[in-house]
This record gives sequence, structure tokens and C-alpha cells, in this order.
Amino acid sequence: MRLAVIAGDGIGPEVVAEGLKVLGAVTPDLETTAYDLGAARWQRTGELLPDTVLDELRGHDAILLGAIGDPGVPPGILERGLLLRLRFELDHHVNLRPARLFDGVRSPLAEPGEIDMLCVREGTEGPYVGNGGVLRRDTPHEVATEVSLNTAFGVERVVRYAFERATARPRRHLTLIHKTNVLTHAGSLWSRTVEELSAEFPEVTVAYQHVDAASMFFITDPGRYDVIVTDNLFGDIVTDVAAAVTGGIGLAASGNLDVSGTNPAMFEPVHGSAPDIAGQGVADPTATVLSIGLLLEHLGHADLARRVDAAVAFDLSTRDPRGPVRTTEVGDRLAALAGR
Amino acid sequence: MRLAVIAGDGIGPEVVAEGLKVLGAVTPDLETTAYDLGAARWQRTGELLPDTVLDELRGHDAILLGAIGDPGVPPGILERGLLLRLRFELDHHVNLRPARLFDGVRSPLAEPGEIDMLCVREGTEGPYVGNGGVLRRDTPHEVATEVSLNTAFGVERVVRYAFERATARPRRHLTLIHKTNVLTHAGSLWSRTVEELSAEFPEVTVAYQHVDAASMFFITDPGRYDVIVTDNLFGDIVTDVAAAVTGGIGLAASGNLDVSGTNPAMFEPVHGSAPDIAGQGVADPTATVLSIGLLLEHLGHADLARRVDAAVAFDLSTRDPRGPVRTTEVGDRLAALAGR
Ligand SMILES: CC(C)[C@H](C(=O)O)[C@@H](O)C(=O)O
Ligand SMILES: CC(C)[C@H](C(=O)O)[C@@H](O)C(=O)O
Repeated sequence: MRLAVIAGDGIGPEVVAEGLKVLGAVTPDLETTAYDLGAARWQRTGELLPDTVLDELRGHDAILLGAIGDPGVPPGILERGLLLRLRFELDHHVNLRPARLFDGVRSPLAEPGEIDMLCVREGTEGPYVGNGGVLRRDTPHEVATEVSLNTAFGVERVVRYAFERATARPRRHLTLIHKTNVLTHAGSLWSRTVEELSAEFPEVTVAYQHVDAASMFFITDPGRYDVIVTDNLFGDIVTDVAAAVTGGIGLAASGNLDVSGTNPAMFEPVHGSAPDIAGQGVADPTATVLSIGLLLEHLGHADLARRVDAAVAFDLSTRDPRGPVRTTEVGDRLAALAGR
Repeated sequence: MRLAVIAGDGIGPEVVAEGLKVLGAVTPDLETTAYDLGAARWQRTGELLPDTVLDELRGHDAILLGAIGDPGVPPGILERGLLLRLRFELDHHVNLRPARLFDGVRSPLAEPGEIDMLCVREGTEGPYVGNGGVLRRDTPHEVATEVSLNTAFGVERVVRYAFERATARPRRHLTLIHKTNVLTHAGSLWSRTVEELSAEFPEVTVAYQHVDAASMFFITDPGRYDVIVTDNLFGDIVTDVAAAVTGGIGLAASGNLDVSGTNPAMFEPVHGSAPDIAGQGVADPTATVLSIGLLLEHLGHADLARRVDAAVAFDLSTRDPRGPVRTTEVGDRLAALAGR
């Protein structure tokens, strides 16, 4: 397995080290190449993602990313120039975000019940395309636009993937989240696509919810969800709501997939670089380790993925949920459990 | 007080009747005109909002709306043709949504703490403008767009209003919610506007959060928020998250204001027409009564508004939070309390 590693900024290198520790414990066949990208490189050299680096990344089986970001960098620079550029250049149209409440994890909800959902967020379209502009900047007549672009091609492939995932799960239920009553053009494309594909997947039951209502039900009744499919921006928001009710982004894993297999997939914890706790050895590497699980599953090692997930589940069920986290200790425990 | 009343569909007429009961109990000076608008009228006549009706509405001091909607109407028709048309025609640029956790109300959060926030959602711009379209519909080459329009004029007046509200509250704290790292054009306009106006309101402390992070903190730490200002679509989502953690949309009130005073403001509970429970007398009219409180405050009757709010607060603190709701009984109790 040839893995490109972008440790990034802040706690990124700390959590990535533990992720690699666990990966190394379940597979001997591992060759990693480190890439220095992120806020630090940009501040030092002005470079974000040189084309030569992008080409090299394409030559790997997968990419592991820690975290990118620093308060000293103006908003948008690293996101548009690095994080989103990677997703767009590598055609990561599926942004996969499971949200499961593990035993032993404290949910902020009083009665969370069982939560086990899989969010399939579109990753290369919608309001994220960077299509917009500013007219008459800094005058009282300024106009700023943002255009959400949605294509049949782009929506179909993500919805199809979501149906396929739903088919493989016990509940076989898929919920489309959008705002069809206001964003009628994009909403209609999404609804028609789900409706059409549902004929190909008759065993999957389908529901629709507006994003505002869904954000509420994620809190009042999260157990009703199985697989979710939604656009890029709604997915950004609802997956954070899902993460919050399942114990926070310290546990939220994600995979950015080009389902066609043309480009390597990229796996990353959902949390950011957390500069406030960087360098102290107290960042929780669990989200990174769960992302390693997604990576293994994606590369066809379902058995190894299950071992990593089981290690996390066991460790969480025996951790003191209020106790302090030591990054390397968590990694050591998870590596030992997964590698048994 | 000349009040236009659009009771609407489903539970709309039931909750509006109780709202008017409470309003009548605190002010004798009340003249109401009922307008038949909503799903039922559209289904009967094909009419949504005739221009003559719109003209008549403009002649009132305020509008009270119950709920609009029916599952038999395709998505978008009533929203674009009636609800949003009212907001846009009457220049309701401030969509005001308080979220307060009243004593005695069950939050779905295990440790909600004190929650008392005021969301100022923009109401006439952003992705709600209806600017978008579909190309090559129903072909594999279909493209659907949605354009978010943001103007200095439109953003400034809402941000200014939010600062003014923050100034009048004990904590004097304002949080801008946006997604400046991805929607860089609109995000920049919003951030620059907040930054500029903050010079005029030096006593207000200002914070910024991305909408995804805010949606999480609304769940993990809602007590940190005081006044919030955000765009139309983000506001739609985060106010429902705020409603969820403060006991649900059964308690969520809202006001749609033209702050210039040119057009009458419109007050409505955030919940929908709930056809599943319509006609049974079990809908909770509390959100409508709280909307009456906002109406009274807006029309300069702060003393009466406080009486209505106090009646609700008292009633909620003495209700069985799990007990059944009888619409008219709640209205009777609130009217008696407010009218004392
Ligand atoms: C950092 C940002 C560009 C990103 C997004 O909005 O997708 C993040 O919030 C995420 O969810 O991965
Ligand atoms: C019904 C719909 C158009 C509306 C909105 O999106 O604004 C509703 O969700 C609300 O929040 O008042």
C-alpha cells in the first residue's frame, strides 16, 4: 500500500502519527511518503499545492491528511487553494461521513438512543464550486454572489453511491436532505434523481427532509436515520450536527472518494488543526484512526477495517469519558488492540 | 391596532385563534381582518397572493400568520408564491427569531444550561432570491443553478439592526455566522460589514463562526450565544437547531420586519401546518402567543409584550412537560395570565 501523508498543521502531525501506528499494526505492507503542505508551508514559501506535488499524490493508493489551518492565514486561502483544490482536482465527489454513537461515549443529548448513520455528502459541486464574485467592492453599491452549480452527472453518481451503501446496510433506508421548497431548481434535480434511481433499488426505502427540519430531527430523533445523501453545503452543516450528537468532531472520520477509482481517495478527521492544544500531546487521535478504518475498507481490506473499528469501539467503551486524553497512549492502545 | 390575520392551513387557524385570544386580553384596541390565503385557497382557485390582497395587507399595522402548507401541494408553490413573496414584497429584511430555554421546558440536551439567544436572520437576499435555473432538464446533461445575491445595502441594514439589538441586551455580544472560508465573496461582504459597523458599536463584543462549527456549538455550548446575525439560508438552518435545543418549534416564535417601517411586519410561529394533528385541538399555540409578544414589542407596546412573555414563562414553568396539550386550554390560561 503506497500512502501519501499530509500531516499538516497544529495537531495534524500528532494525530497522523497515531493513525499510522494503528495502520502499521494491521498491515506490514505499507510505504508512506510525507508531503509538507499547509499553513506552515504557505507562510514560509507562499506555496499551497504545487502541480508537481499534485501529480505525485495521484500516484498513490490513498492519501491520509491530518489537519490544515492556522489563525494567521486569512479565511479561504488554505480552504480554496489546498483543501478544496485537492477535493476538486482528485474528483472527490463522495465525501463519506459516518456518525455512530459508540458505547461509552457521552452524547450531549439526554436520550440519544442508538445512532448509526452514514452521511454521503456531495464533494465537487453545489455552492462549493467557487463560482461567484464581487461588484463595486467597498462601496455602498457592492453586490456579492455565490453560485451553486449542480449537474445531472454530478448528482447521479453520488445518489447512486448512497443507494449502494444503503443496500448493504440492515435498515436499507435513504434520506435525501435538501431545501427543495426554496432552492427549487437544484432541489428538483436532486429529488428527481433520487426518485429515478429508487426504481433501481426497490429494496431501499426513501425519505426526504428539508435541511432545517433534518437539523432538528438530528437532535430530537437521530436514531431514525440510516444513510443520508445531500449536497456539499448542507452536508457540511448536517455532518457537524451529526458529529455533535455522537460525541463531537474528536470522533468524526471522513473519506473523500473518487468512486470511479481514477484518483486516490483521501481520508481525514473532520476536526481542524486546533492550534490551541497543538504540541501538548492531548489531541484525540480517534477520528484519525477511524479514518484509517474507512481507508482500509475503501482499499478492499474490509477485515482489517473491522479490526480497527472494533479496537476503537472497545477502547471507547472502557475509557473514562471525562478523563484526559494522551495522544500517544490512545494510539498505543488502539494499535495494540487492532494488531492482536 | 389594525391587524391582518392569515390563519392559513392545518393547525394554523387553531393556534391563531389562541394568539388572538391572548392579544385581546391585553389590548382592547384591536381590529382584525381575516385573509383567506394558503393551500386551501390555491387548491380551490389557483390563487396564491392576489395583488389586491397584497395592497390591503399593506394598509395594516401588522400581520399575524398561522401556518401555510399541505402535503398535496408540490414543494415551492406556496413557499415561493406566498410565504416568500410576502417577505420579499413587504421587504421583511429582518427575520427575528429568539431562542430561549424557559424554566420547565425539556431540552433534548442533557445539560442545556441557560439559553437565551436572539437570531437576526436576513430575509430578502442570499440563496432565497429565486435566482437560478435549469438547463437541459431531464437529460444526462442537465445543469441546475441557484444564485445567492448579497448586497451592501441588504447586509448593512440587517447587521446594523443586530448591533442595535445587542446593545440593548445585558451581554452585548454579537456572533456572525457564515461560511467565509468557502463562500469567500459573500462571506467577505458580511465580515467587512460587521467589522465596519463594530466601530459604531464599541460596547458590543463581536465573534465569528463558520456555520458548521456554530451548528455544533449550538448543541454543545448554546449558552455562549447572545445575538446572532446570519444570512437567509444559514439562518433557516441554525434557528431550527436553536429551536430544537430550546424545546422544539412548538415554542419558536418569529417576526418578519421591515425595519424602515414602510411595510407592516408579519409575525408567525416557526412550525408548519402539521396536517397530521390538525383539527384535533392538540396543537400547542405557545409559539403563536410568543409571536404576539414580538408583535406587541415591535408596535411599541413593550409593557404588554412583557406581560405576554411572563404569562408564557409562568405557564411553561407549571405545565407538565410530558402532559398532553389542549390548544384552547393553553390559550385560555395564557389569556387569563396576560390579562390579569
Ligand atoms: C475546511 C472546510 C473547507 C471544510 C468544508 O467546508 O468542507 C470543512 O468544514 C469540512 O467539513 O471538511
Ligand atoms: C417554509 C420555508 C419557505 C421557510 C423558510 O425556509 O424560510 C421556513 O422554513 C421558515 O424558516 O420560515
